[in-house]
Amino acid sequence: MKRIAIDMDEVIADALPKHVSLFNQKYNETITMKDLNGKKLEDLCPDLKEEINRLIADPLFFRDLAVIKDSVNVIKELTEHYQVFITTAAMEFPPSFNAKYEWLKEHFDFLSDLNFVFCGDKSIINADYLIDDNVRHFKQFVGKGILFTSPHNTNETGYTRMNNWKEIRSYFLEE
Amino acid sequence: MKRIAIDMDEVIADALPKHVSLFNQKYNETITMKDLNGKKLEDLCPDLKEEINRLIADPLFFRDLAVIKDSVNVIKELTEHYQVFITTAAMEFPPSFNAKYEWLKEHFDFLSDLNFVFCGDKSIINADYLIDDNVRHFKQFVGKGILFTSPHNTNETGYTRMNNWKEIRSYFLEE
Repeated sequence: MKRIAIDMDEVIADALPKHVSLFNQKYNETITMKDLNGKKLEDLCPDLKEEINRLIADPLFFRDLAVIKDSVNVIKELTEHYQVFITTAAMEFPPSFNAKYEWLKEHFDFLSDLNFVFCGDKSIINADYLIDDNVRHFKQFVGKGILFTSPHNTNETGYTRMNNWKEIRSYFLEE
Repeated sequence: MKRIAIDMDEVIADALPKHVSLFNQKYNETITMKDLNGKKLEDLCPDLKEEINRLIADPLFFRDLAVIKDSVNVIKELTEHYQVFITTAAMEFPPSFNAKYEWLKEHFDFLSDLNFVFCGDKSIINADYLIDDNVRHFKQFVGKGILFTSPHNTNETGYTRMNNWKEIRSYFLEE
């Protein structure tokens, strides 16, 4: 059985809208998702980079994120044909451990805890595929990187790109 | 640079003596480390298996474990010649996340957070070597398993065995 590793933020957990909304509220800004095309929040407000990261460092930030559309159903279907692991760079924000775990248990309770991985450098992941929104994780990854579209990566080329979970379903289950 | 993945409990963190001592205290037993030769605590008291696991499920159990002799200095030296990752099956005890992370920061602060991995099924680890006391993690591991001696595994054969960190130093840095 081939193995698919799947990132959390921006792939199954909709972190960006909450991040932008918190940022706008706190710093009286009016940044929209359209402004973020090809950019990260800190590219738009480089002077506030630390403050931007601090918003995510809140232990509860990750607990109530919306689930990315269709990810639950498609991943459930994928588990019938593939080994599925959730591989998140939680080590970048250690205070997020518990919230991330509880979020996974709430929304992806059909996956075993033993298939959750909290890591940092994803070159440590042994899988055939890695679905991720950050191309930096593909550079040393042993398998094939699948880029999940997020505003910040729209200009990235050279990777198999998936714009939504319906496309992933089609790629892994129909082709 | 080759990569070594290293388990925590019974390899760098001395969990067993604390576990046995807590168990003896709570259940008025007198189990010694010698009694555990070739056995796990639950093999000696199968009726108390749940209670035994409950002692480890305490979020603070892992916070004040002693460091296994020579592990800090040898790992520090290994990082000059290998990529070193700490790969612990923390997903078996999710309440342990924070204590395990804080313990690593206290004793192995020379390692990057990005090289810490909290997982369950270690077949997800992509490394050349895995130093672990549980042979079950070697079955599907992509690299070479190195068995670190712990009372419960003394009867295991068929693996490269290391009895202490001086032997590991010699294996990886002198041979």
